[in-house]
Amino acid sequence: MEKQWDIIEVLRHSRHDWMNKLQLIKGNIDLNRIDRVKTVIEEIIIEAQNETKLSNLPMPGFVSLLLKTNWENPSFELEYEVLIEKEAVKIDDENLTNWTEQFFSCLHNAVEAFQANHLLITIEPYSNGLRFFFNFSGIIINRELLETFLAERSSLLKVAIKEFSQNELTLEVFMPAI
Amino acid sequence: MEKQWDIIEVLRHSRHDWMNKLQLIKGNIDLNRIDRVKTVIEEIIIEAQNETKLSNLPMPGFVSLLLKTNWENPSFELEYEVLIEKEAVKIDDENLTNWTEQFFSCLHNAVEAFQANHLLITIEPYSNGLRFFFNFSGIIINRELLETFLAERSSLLKVAIKEFSQNELTLEVFMPAI
Repeated sequence: MEKQWDIIEVLRHSRHDWMNKLQLIKGNIDLNRIDRVKTVIEEIIIEAQNETKLSNLPMPGFVSLLLKTNWENPSFELEYEVLIEKEAVKIDDENLTNWTEQFFSCLHNAVEAFQANHLLITIEPYSNGLRFFFNFSGIIINRELLETFLAERSSLLKVAIKEFSQNELTLEVFMPAI
Repeated sequence: MEKQWDIIEVLRHSRHDWMNKLQLIKGNIDLNRIDRVKTVIEEIIIEAQNETKLSNLPMPGFVSLLLKTNWENPSFELEYEVLIEKEAVKIDDENLTNWTEQFFSCLHNAVEAFQANHLLITIEPYSNGLRFFFNFSGIIINRELLETFLAERSSLLKVAIKEFSQNELTLEVFMPAI
Protein backbone atom coordinates (compact mmCIF):
# COMPACT_ATOMS: atom_id res chain seq x y z
CA MET A 1 0.00 0.00 0.00
CA GLU A 2 3.03 2.31 -0.46
CA LYS A 3 2.76 5.21 -2.88
CA GLN A 4 4.08 8.73 -3.28
CA TRP A 5 1.34 11.36 -3.22
CA ASP A 6 2.02 14.58 -5.06
CA ILE A 7 -0.25 17.59 -5.37
CA ILE A 8 -1.73 16.37 -8.70
CA GLU A 9 -2.57 12.93 -7.31
CA VAL A 10 -3.99 14.28 -4.03
CA LEU A 11 -6.25 16.67 -5.95
CA ARG A 12 -7.28 13.94 -8.37
CA HIS A 13 -8.57 11.81 -5.49
CA SER A 14 -10.07 14.74 -3.63
CA ARG A 15 -11.84 15.91 -6.81
CA HIS A 16 -13.20 12.39 -7.34
CA ASP A 17 -14.55 12.27 -3.77
CA TRP A 18 -16.17 15.70 -4.08
CA MET A 19 -17.67 14.91 -7.49
CA ASN A 20 -19.36 11.88 -5.91
CA LYS A 21 -20.88 14.16 -3.27
CA LEU A 22 -21.96 16.64 -5.94
CA GLN A 23 -23.54 13.80 -7.91
CA LEU A 24 -25.60 12.91 -4.85
CA ILE A 25 -26.84 16.51 -4.64
CA LYS A 26 -27.47 16.69 -8.40
CA GLY A 27 -29.35 13.39 -8.48
CA ASN A 28 -31.71 14.47 -5.71
CA ILE A 29 -32.26 17.90 -7.26
CA ASP A 30 -33.15 16.25 -10.59
CA LEU A 31 -35.73 14.19 -8.70
CA ASN A 32 -36.91 17.39 -6.97
CA ARG A 33 -36.20 15.90 -3.54
CA ILE A 34 -35.16 19.21 -2.00
CA ASP A 35 -35.43 18.09 1.63
CA ARG A 36 -33.14 15.17 0.86
CA VAL A 37 -30.69 17.59 -0.79
CA LYS A 38 -30.63 19.70 2.38
CA THR A 39 -29.87 16.62 4.49
CA VAL A 40 -27.10 15.54 2.10
CA ILE A 41 -25.53 19.00 2.27
CA GLU A 42 -25.66 18.97 6.08
CA GLU A 43 -23.93 15.58 6.11
CA ILE A 44 -21.22 16.80 3.74
CA ILE A 45 -20.60 19.84 5.95
CA ILE A 46 -20.29 17.68 9.08
CA GLU A 47 -17.88 15.34 7.26
CA ALA A 48 -15.76 18.30 6.13
CA GLN A 49 -15.72 19.75 9.65
CA ASN A 50 -14.56 16.38 10.95
CA GLU A 51 -11.78 16.34 8.33
CA THR A 52 -10.77 19.86 9.39
CA LYS A 53 -10.59 18.74 13.04
CA LEU A 54 -8.45 15.77 12.02
CA SER A 55 -6.16 18.01 9.98
CA ASN A 56 -5.62 20.29 12.97
CA LEU A 57 -4.26 17.51 15.19
CA PRO A 58 -0.53 17.89 15.93
CA MET A 59 0.38 14.51 14.42
CA PRO A 60 1.01 15.00 10.68
CA GLY A 61 2.14 11.45 9.98
CA PHE A 62 -0.97 9.85 11.47
CA VAL A 63 -3.30 12.46 9.93
CA SER A 64 -1.81 12.02 6.44
CA LEU A 65 -2.15 8.26 6.76
CA LEU A 66 -5.84 8.54 7.64
CA LEU A 67 -6.53 11.06 4.87
CA LYS A 68 -5.05 8.90 2.10
CA THR A 69 -5.88 5.36 3.24
CA ASN A 70 -9.20 4.99 1.38
CA TRP A 71 -7.52 6.14 -1.86
CA GLU A 72 -5.24 3.12 -1.68
CA ASN A 73 -8.26 0.82 -1.87
CA PRO A 74 -7.73 -1.36 1.16
CA SER A 75 -10.20 -4.22 1.63
CA PHE A 76 -11.86 -2.18 4.38
CA GLU A 77 -13.40 1.29 4.37
CA LEU A 78 -11.89 3.72 6.83
CA GLU A 79 -13.91 6.28 8.76
CA TYR A 80 -12.79 8.45 11.64
CA GLU A 81 -14.34 10.66 14.23
CA VAL A 82 -12.45 13.32 16.14
CA LEU A 83 -13.97 14.06 19.54
CA ILE A 84 -11.52 16.79 20.49
CA GLU A 85 -12.80 20.33 20.75
CA LYS A 86 -9.75 22.11 22.18
CA GLU A 87 -6.14 21.92 21.07
CA ALA A 88 -4.88 18.36 21.33
CA VAL A 89 -1.80 17.36 23.32
CA LYS A 90 1.28 16.20 21.43
CA ILE A 91 1.90 12.47 21.28
CA ASP A 92 4.56 10.28 19.65
CA ASP A 93 3.35 10.67 16.04
CA GLU A 94 6.03 8.48 14.45
CA ASN A 95 5.39 5.55 16.74
CA LEU A 96 1.61 5.75 16.32
CA THR A 97 1.90 6.15 12.54
CA ASN A 98 4.22 3.15 12.15
CA TRP A 99 1.99 0.95 14.27
CA THR A 100 -1.18 2.08 12.44
CA GLU A 101 0.38 1.53 9.00
CA GLN A 102 1.30 -2.00 10.00
CA PHE A 103 -2.14 -2.58 11.48
CA PHE A 104 -3.85 -1.39 8.27
CA SER A 105 -1.64 -3.63 6.17
CA CYS A 106 -2.36 -6.60 8.43
CA LEU A 107 -6.12 -5.91 8.51
CA HIS A 108 -6.13 -5.52 4.69
CA ASN A 109 -4.78 -9.07 4.41
CA ALA A 110 -6.86 -10.56 7.22
CA VAL A 111 -10.35 -9.65 6.03
CA GLU A 112 -12.49 -10.96 3.18
CA ALA A 113 -12.18 -8.62 0.19
CA PHE A 114 -15.26 -7.07 -1.47
CA GLN A 115 -17.34 -7.34 1.69
CA ALA A 116 -18.79 -4.58 3.84
CA ASN A 117 -15.68 -4.16 5.99
CA HIS A 118 -15.54 -0.98 8.06
CA LEU A 119 -12.91 0.43 10.33
CA LEU A 120 -13.94 3.35 12.51
CA ILE A 121 -11.20 5.21 14.35
CA THR A 122 -12.32 7.43 17.21
CA ILE A 123 -9.91 9.94 18.73
CA GLU A 124 -10.61 11.51 22.11
CA PRO A 125 -8.78 13.15 25.02
CA TYR A 126 -8.09 10.76 27.90
CA SER A 127 -6.18 11.24 31.12
CA ASN A 128 -2.90 13.01 30.25
CA GLY A 129 -2.92 11.96 26.60
CA LEU A 130 -5.17 10.71 23.81
CA ARG A 131 -7.22 7.58 23.41
CA PHE A 132 -7.77 5.93 20.02
CA PHE A 133 -10.44 3.33 19.43
CA PHE A 134 -9.98 1.12 16.35
CA ASN A 135 -13.35 -0.49 15.77
CA PHE A 136 -13.53 -2.99 12.90
CA SER A 137 -16.73 -4.65 11.77
CA GLY A 138 -16.85 -7.00 8.80
CA ILE A 139 -15.55 -10.46 7.98
CA ILE A 140 -12.21 -11.62 9.37
CA ILE A 141 -10.90 -14.67 7.52
CA ASN A 142 -7.34 -14.76 8.84
CA ARG A 143 -7.54 -14.38 12.61
CA GLU A 144 -4.02 -15.71 13.14
CA LEU A 145 -2.46 -12.87 11.15
CA LEU A 146 -4.08 -10.32 13.44
CA GLU A 147 -3.25 -12.34 16.57
CA THR A 148 0.40 -12.50 15.60
CA PHE A 149 0.49 -8.79 14.82
CA LEU A 150 -1.17 -7.88 18.11
CA ALA A 151 1.16 -10.13 20.08
CA GLU A 152 4.34 -8.93 18.38
CA ARG A 153 3.78 -5.31 17.47
CA SER A 154 1.81 -3.97 20.34
CA SER A 155 4.65 -3.84 22.82
CA LEU A 156 5.57 -0.40 21.45
CA LEU A 157 2.13 1.01 22.22
CA LYS A 158 -0.40 0.54 24.99
CA VAL A 159 -2.93 -1.56 23.10
CA ALA A 160 -5.90 -3.22 24.80
CA ILE A 161 -8.04 -5.75 22.92
CA LYS A 162 -11.65 -5.01 23.87
CA GLU A 163 -13.40 -7.36 21.44
CA PHE A 164 -12.12 -9.93 18.95
CA SER A 165 -14.59 -12.14 17.10
CA GLN A 166 -15.03 -13.20 13.47
CA ASN A 167 -17.04 -10.06 12.77
CA GLU A 168 -15.57 -7.54 15.10
CA LEU A 169 -12.26 -6.30 16.41
CA THR A 170 -12.04 -3.42 18.84
CA LEU A 171 -8.71 -2.07 20.03
CA GLU A 172 -8.05 0.73 22.46
CA VAL A 173 -4.74 2.52 22.09
CA PHE A 174 -3.58 5.02 24.68
CA MET A 175 -0.91 7.54 23.72
CA PRO A 176 0.54 9.59 26.59
CA ALA A 177 1.32 13.28 26.08
CA ILE A 178 4.98 14.00 25.34
CA MET B 1 5.63 32.62 -3.05
CA GLU B 2 7.61 29.47 -2.13
CA LYS B 3 5.99 26.89 0.11
CA GLN B 4 6.04 23.16 0.64
CA TRP B 5 2.67 21.53 0.01
CA ASP B 6 1.99 18.33 1.87
CA ILE B 7 -1.14 16.19 1.68
CA ILE B 8 -2.72 17.91 4.72
CA GLU B 9 -2.18 21.41 3.29
CA VAL B 10 -3.33 20.48 -0.22
CA LEU B 11 -6.53 18.98 1.18
CA ARG B 12 -7.06 21.97 3.47
CA HIS B 13 -7.08 24.30 0.45
CA SER B 14 -9.08 21.93 -1.72
CA ARG B 15 -11.66 21.49 1.05
CA HIS B 16 -11.90 25.26 1.45
CA ASP B 17 -12.49 25.70 -2.32
CA TRP B 18 -15.13 22.96 -2.39
CA MET B 19 -16.90 24.29 0.70
CA ASN B 20 -17.24 27.66 -1.06
CA LYS B 21 -18.89 25.90 -3.99
CA LEU B 22 -21.15 23.97 -1.63
CA GLN B 23 -22.08 27.22 0.09
CA LEU B 24 -23.17 28.62 -3.26
CA ILE B 25 -25.44 25.61 -3.78
CA LYS B 26 -26.76 25.73 -0.20
CA GLY B 27 -27.48 29.47 -0.36
CA ASN B 28 -29.52 29.11 -3.53
CA ILE B 29 -31.39 26.09 -2.22
CA ASP B 30 -32.31 28.01 0.94
CA LEU B 31 -33.73 30.73 -1.35
CA ASN B 32 -35.51 28.01 -3.33
CA ARG B 33 -33.76 29.12 -6.54
CA ILE B 34 -33.57 25.60 -7.95
CA ASP B 35 -32.83 26.64 -11.55
CA ARG B 36 -29.90 28.72 -10.29
CA VAL B 37 -28.67 25.68 -8.29
CA LYS B 38 -28.72 23.57 -11.46
CA THR B 39 -26.65 26.19 -13.31
CA VAL B 40 -24.16 26.40 -10.43
CA ILE B 41 -23.76 22.62 -10.42
CA GLU B 42 -23.20 22.57 -14.20
CA GLU B 43 -20.50 25.24 -13.81
CA ILE B 44 -18.78 23.29 -11.03
CA ILE B 45 -18.78 20.15 -13.19
CA ILE B 46 -17.24 22.02 -16.14
CA GLU B 47 -14.58 23.51 -13.86
CA ALA B 48 -13.74 20.08 -12.45
CA GLN B 49 -13.53 18.58 -15.95
CA ASN B 50 -11.14 21.38 -16.91
CA GLU B 51 -9.01 20.61 -13.84
CA THR B 52 -9.00 16.93 -14.80
CA LYS B 53 -7.82 17.82 -18.32
CA LEU B 54 -5.07 19.99 -16.86
CA SER B 55 -4.01 17.20 -14.50
CA ASN B 56 -3.70 14.78 -17.42
CA LEU B 57 -1.15 16.93 -19.27
CA PRO B 58 2.34 15.35 -19.34
CA MET B 59 3.99 18.34 -17.59
CA PRO B 60 3.74 17.76 -13.82
CA GLY B 61 5.78 20.81 -12.82
CA PHE B 62 3.67 23.25 -14.80
CA VAL B 63 0.40 21.56 -13.77
CA SER B 64 1.29 21.60 -10.06
CA LEU B 65 2.22 25.28 -10.33
CA LEU B 66 -1.15 26.15 -11.86
CA LEU B 67 -3.08 24.07 -9.33
CA LYS B 68 -1.51 25.72 -6.30
CA THR B 69 -0.97 29.33 -7.45
CA ASN B 70 -4.28 30.77 -6.22
CA TRP B 71 -3.65 29.25 -2.77
CA GLU B 72 -0.54 31.37 -2.44
CA ASN B 73 -2.67 34.53 -2.72
CA PRO B 74 -0.93 36.34 -5.54
CA SER B 75 -2.25 39.81 -6.37
CA PHE B 76 -3.97 38.33 -9.43
CA GLU B 77 -6.49 35.51 -9.79
CA LEU B 78 -5.40 32.67 -12.02
CA GLU B 79 -7.76 30.83 -14.34
CA TYR B 80 -6.89 28.33 -17.03
CA GLU B 81 -8.57 26.63 -19.92
CA VAL B 82 -7.29 23.46 -21.55
CA LEU B 83 -8.34 23.14 -25.18
CA ILE B 84 -6.75 19.76 -25.77
CA GLU B 85 -9.00 16.78 -26.37
CA LYS B 86 -6.47 14.12 -27.28
CA GLU B 87 -3.25 13.17 -25.52
CA ALA B 88 -0.89 16.15 -25.44
CA VAL B 89 2.64 16.07 -26.82
CA LYS B 90 5.54 16.25 -24.39
CA ILE B 91 7.26 19.58 -24.01
CA ASP B 92 10.13 20.88 -21.85
CA ASP B 93 8.24 20.99 -18.55
CA GLU B 94 11.15 22.27 -16.43
CA ASN B 95 11.89 25.20 -18.72
CA LEU B 96 8.23 26.21 -18.98
CA THR B 97 7.69 25.84 -15.22
CA ASN B 98 10.72 27.96 -14.34
CA TRP B 99 9.72 30.69 -16.76
CA THR B 100 6.10 30.67 -15.55
CA GLU B 101 7.10 30.81 -11.88
CA GLN B 102 9.26 33.84 -12.59
CA PHE B 103 6.50 35.43 -14.65
CA PHE B 104 3.95 34.92 -11.84
CA SER B 105 6.34 36.42 -9.32
CA CYS B 106 7.02 39.41 -11.58
CA LEU B 107 3.31 39.93 -12.34
CA HIS B 108 2.50 39.67 -8.62
CA ASN B 109 4.83 42.61 -7.99
CA ALA B 110 3.86 44.61 -11.08
CA VAL B 111 0.10 44.88 -10.56
CA GLU B 112 -1.98 46.87 -8.10
CA ALA B 113 -2.97 44.65 -5.19
CA PHE B 114 -6.61 44.21 -4.13
CA GLN B 115 -7.93 45.03 -7.61
CA ALA B 116 -9.75 42.80 -10.07
CA ASN B 117 -6.61 41.36 -11.64
CA HIS B 118 -7.11 38.23 -13.74
CA LEU B 119 -4.69 36.00 -15.54
CA LEU B 120 -6.19 33.50 -17.95
CA ILE B 121 -3.89 30.81 -19.33
CA THR B 122 -5.13 28.97 -22.40
CA ILE B 123 -3.41 25.81 -23.55
CA GLU B 124 -3.96 24.42 -27.05
CA PRO B 125 -2.24 22.22 -29.63
CA TYR B 126 -0.32 24.17 -32.28
CA SER B 127 1.88 23.04 -35.10
CA ASN B 128 4.22 20.37 -33.71
CA GLY B 129 3.89 21.45 -30.10
CA LEU B 130 1.69 23.42 -27.72
CA ARG B 131 0.70 27.05 -27.60
CA PHE B 132 0.09 28.88 -24.32
CA PHE B 133 -1.69 32.22 -24.13
CA PHE B 134 -1.10 34.24 -20.96
CA ASN B 135 -3.84 36.86 -20.92
CA PHE B 136 -3.74 39.37 -18.07
CA SER B 137 -6.41 41.98 -17.50
CA GLY B 138 -6.31 44.34 -14.52
CA ILE B 139 -4.15 47.23 -13.38
CA ILE B 140 -0.41 47.24 -14.13
CA ILE B 141 1.43 49.79 -11.98
CA ASN B 142 5.02 48.72 -12.64
CA ARG B 143 5.39 48.30 -16.38
CA GLU B 144 9.19 48.41 -16.24
CA LEU B 145 9.38 45.31 -14.09
CA LEU B 146 7.48 43.34 -16.71
CA GLU B 147 9.44 44.87 -19.58
CA THR B 148 12.74 43.92 -17.97
CA PHE B 149 11.50 40.41 -17.29
CA LEU B 150 10.26 39.96 -20.84
CA ALA B 151 13.50 41.30 -22.30
CA GLU B 152 15.78 39.21 -20.09
CA ARG B 153 13.94 35.99 -19.41
CA SER B 154 12.21 35.23 -22.63
CA SER B 155 15.27 34.13 -24.55
CA LEU B 156 14.77 30.63 -23.14
CA LEU B 157 11.27 30.36 -24.57
CA LYS B 158 9.56 31.52 -27.74
CA VAL B 159 7.52 34.37 -26.26
CA ALA B 160 5.58 36.84 -28.40
CA ILE B 161 4.06 39.97 -26.85
CA LYS B 162 0.63 40.37 -28.47
CA GLU B 163 -0.69 43.22 -26.32
CA PHE B 164 0.85 45.34 -23.57
CA SER B 165 -1.09 48.27 -22.14
CA GLN B 166 -1.83 49.50 -18.63
CA ASN B 167 -4.82 47.20 -18.39
CA GLU B 168 -3.82 44.26 -20.48
CA LEU B 169 -0.88 42.01 -21.21
CA THR B 170 -1.15 39.13 -23.64
CA LEU B 171 1.74 36.77 -24.25
CA GLU B 172 1.90 33.83 -26.61
CA VAL B 173 4.37 31.11 -25.71
CA PHE B 174 5.12 28.30 -28.13
CA MET B 175 6.64 25.09 -26.77
CA PRO B 176 7.84 22.61 -29.40
CA ALA B 177 7.31 18.88 -28.86
CA ILE B 178 10.40 17.11 -27.52
